[in-house]
Amino acid sequence: MTDKALAPAAYMAALKARDLDAIVALYADDAVVEDPIGTPPHVGIEAIREFYKGAVGMPIEPELQGPVRIAGDEVAFAFRIGMPDVGMTIDIIDTFKFNDAGKIVLMRAFWGPENITN
Amino acid sequence: MTDKALAPAAYMAALKARDLDAIVALYADDAVVEDPIGTPPHVGIEAIREFYKGAVGMPIEPELQGPVRIAGDEVAFAFRIGMPDVGMTIDIIDTFKFNDAGKIVLMRAFWGPENITN
Repeated sequence: MTDKALAPAAYMAALKARDLDAIVALYADDAVVEDPIGTPPHVGIEAIREFYKGAVGMPIEPELQGPVRIAGDEVAFAFRIGMPDVGMTIDIIDTFKFNDAGKIVLMRAFWGPENITN
Repeated sequence: MTDKALAPAAYMAALKARDLDAIVALYADDAVVEDPIGTPPHVGIEAIREFYKGAVGMPIEPELQGPVRIAGDEVAFAFRIGMPDVGMTIDIIDTFKFNDAGKIVLMRAFWGPENITN
């Protein structure tokens, strides 16, 4: 069980470490990931693992920005991803919804072309 | 019609001005407001107007924090509300979902007790 308030920092650390197992361990088996919102969601833990294989394919520098907002069984947090290999940064806000076991059942990522800096 | 990217700044300005009509004008007639998430939603423009009557009842200092994240027909943005009369600040992330006319159809506010500073 992951504390809701700490899950975003755990997620940032797992992304930075490019630790696919640690990322996937945050999710429930029946979780859904929409990243970014407007693209087809990744449904279920196997599809989520496949999705993150891409994310951990290159070095990234994730940095939380400001406090995690905690509301009921959901959190939202702002962060910036630096991608030094391609000289890009992306500003993102993610939301997590948790089940009673403290696993993420829904992740939605708010970012688009306007949030990419080259 | 409000540009999605500009709606958060318009919302901050209307809150700061305590301009109830300007706030309500951002919303579609059938909009839903969940503020904070976990409390009963305010459904429809009249319920939303009633809800914001409380919000504009005292001076507040809203400040956007970081860029507005824009994803499809949704945005997310981090901000801080200062309430000088009561010496409190609240750190919030709001999400807006828009209809084709550029009006907000769903607003969800992520904040809770952990996000209040006295």
